[in-house]
Amino acid sequence: MKITRRTFAHGLTASAAFATLPRIGSGQATHVDRMLGYCIVGLGRISMGHFMPACKISQKSRVTALVSGHRDKADKMAAQYNVPVKSIYGYENFDEIATNPDIDAVYIALPNNMHAEYTIRAAKAGKHVLCEKPMATTVKDSEDMIAACKTASKKLMIAYRCQYEPVNLRAIELIRSGKLGSIQAIESANGFIEHAGEWRLSKKMAGGGPLLDVGIYSLNACRYLTGEEPVQIAGYSTVVDHDGRFNEVEENDCWTMRFPSGVVASCNTTYGANMPGFYRVHGSKGMLHMEPAFSYEGIHLKAQIHGESPIEMQEPGKDPDQFVREADYFADCVFQNKEPKTNGEEGLRDMRYMSEILKSGGRTLG
Amino acid sequence: MKITRRTFAHGLTASAAFATLPRIGSGQATHVDRMLGYCIVGLGRISMGHFMPACKISQKSRVTALVSGHRDKADKMAAQYNVPVKSIYGYENFDEIATNPDIDAVYIALPNNMHAEYTIRAAKAGKHVLCEKPMATTVKDSEDMIAACKTASKKLMIAYRCQYEPVNLRAIELIRSGKLGSIQAIESANGFIEHAGEWRLSKKMAGGGPLLDVGIYSLNACRYLTGEEPVQIAGYSTVVDHDGRFNEVEENDCWTMRFPSGVVASCNTTYGANMPGFYRVHGSKGMLHMEPAFSYEGIHLKAQIHGESPIEMQEPGKDPDQFVREADYFADCVFQNKEPKTNGEEGLRDMRYMSEILKSGGRTLG
Repeated sequence: MKITRRTFAHGLTASAAFATLPRIGSGQATHVDRMLGYCIVGLGRISMGHFMPACKISQKSRVTALVSGHRDKADKMAAQYNVPVKSIYGYENFDEIATNPDIDAVYIALPNNMHAEYTIRAAKAGKHVLCEKPMATTVKDSEDMIAACKTASKKLMIAYRCQYEPVNLRAIELIRSGKLGSIQAIESANGFIEHAGEWRLSKKMAGGGPLLDVGIYSLNACRYLTGEEPVQIAGYSTVVDHDGRFNEVEENDCWTMRFPSGVVASCNTTYGANMPGFYRVHGSKGMLHMEPAFSYEGIHLKAQIHGESPIEMQEPGKDPDQFVREADYFADCVFQNKEPKTNGEEGLRDMRYMSEILKSGGRTLG
Repeated sequence: MKITRRTFAHGLTASAAFATLPRIGSGQATHVDRMLGYCIVGLGRISMGHFMPACKISQKSRVTALVSGHRDKADKMAAQYNVPVKSIYGYENFDEIATNPDIDAVYIALPNNMHAEYTIRAAKAGKHVLCEKPMATTVKDSEDMIAACKTASKKLMIAYRCQYEPVNLRAIELIRSGKLGSIQAIESANGFIEHAGEWRLSKKMAGGGPLLDVGIYSLNACRYLTGEEPVQIAGYSTVVDHDGRFNEVEENDCWTMRFPSGVVASCNTTYGANMPGFYRVHGSKGMLHMEPAFSYEGIHLKAQIHGESPIEMQEPGKDPDQFVREADYFADCVFQNKEPKTNGEEGLRDMRYMSEILKSGGRTLG
């Protein structure tokens, strides 16, 4: 790994994260013409149900273009978001976004295996890129994405929502402040039941099973909670339900990590059970339990420091606030020429770790 | 491993376990002269605070002799339990228990590294053995204990309290009944803050760190919950607090297991934090959360089956009821010439798994 622990830890400094946290609806954008124009690439649940509605209430981010293979759906969404017909693209003429001045950035919400291609094409078209996680389906693709954005001098951010969410940031702050004492161990899990026919069950499209889609939250959380990079990581990948759904990707993954300070972490993920997203952080002076930890709203922290009253924090607001924060943070990065804290390198680290986990369990990434 | 999965699963059949579960104070012992006479070997917290008080309220088990290196303490306890002076032993004259007809069995609550010696000497003295967990500090010692009891035709039971505790048995039953659907994954943790000067921090006396003392609960639980033996197991062992406590044993362990059905499990244990003992079992139809899962009283189960009302069960009674069940179950095994379900082989399995975990993390057992 070329990225040092120091680089990463710096990027995760809780106070810095707080400082850049936009307030929902606080109107910090001073000029309406300084709103970031997003071209939405892929009209699925996350874009139509969360990201685009977020842009509607944001004062820094707006939807200015659409890319879809379904013209009917695109026309309907364009009408809802006042996107002119000229700014509706298909995948075949995607590169024409280059000449559309209303597009500052693309938001990529495609099946995982298309992330690399459209990130690289967007960068070549001179657009910044906000890409959903997992970054790609292979380490090589991830590296190519970073290189393409660097060559084009365009920002690349991976959409790690939770790193911009106030309750997760509060958890980081509690840990960094020393309130929990010396951190010893973390448990985390995240999973849901995936149904036959979904692209997530295709190895080609998804690159792997629940680890890439939802386990990545636990993996990323262990890293932002500790502010450290694991020095050892390994696990097992299995199939319980031989009902045809898991002919290509695994159904379950478990893995453990050892961090430089000695913190250990144990994680589970699944496509075979509705597994609540949670984490528990154990320190010598207390424990922190986050549940739900990764959902679109309602994130809830409970902490018990020895000898003190319990600490509790519930996420303010509701969905799509987390997407507003994410979209607006990236807008700030573009406008202020700041490197996103969840940049391509941050996504690449998780890709490498997930590759290690799958490899240790007898599978491969991508 | 010579023990097959079938043997183990049979031993753990929930209904069989329920059938043999004694009711506290139900007076099932028909003759007072059929009470099992226990010689308590080691007067520490667990014997004086839990096991001996349990014998006081039991109708099948009673304290008939004591072994201690502290004569004053022994005299005091003897008075409390109506143990005659002739039945107070030191470690030097331990073997004289052979000629004491009031002693049917020994209860071994010594530092881990003394379990093997006193189990073997007790068997040679013609006494049955109920031995605290972990069974020993090495796999070899565990094998020798089994062999000695077999040669002497004496019962050997390892004191896995939770396998005789009604709420844990209810969890097993919920899983076996199929109510949770196909089981996918388990998370478990158990730990506490150990203080300088305790024998548990001595490698020689303890054989290892928190894994042997408290992590063993999570390990054993994953096995009784699934009714399966792990086919892969590995983890990491670390020290966070370099304050002198962990010069010999590790402070933290994390590990993962893969079971034949495909169930995965992730566990943590520590001597560096007050880590609540818990487990979560995720199935395709629901989830079961047990917390506290391993404590002396108050064990609490919550289960949520999709589309059904929540299931909740709190352990009836209080400490030392779990020790009554354990002592009386072993009395039944002796009186009815039954093999204990947590026999030496069951203890040996955990010793082998813990050896694997420590080895994979760069440490050794014993």
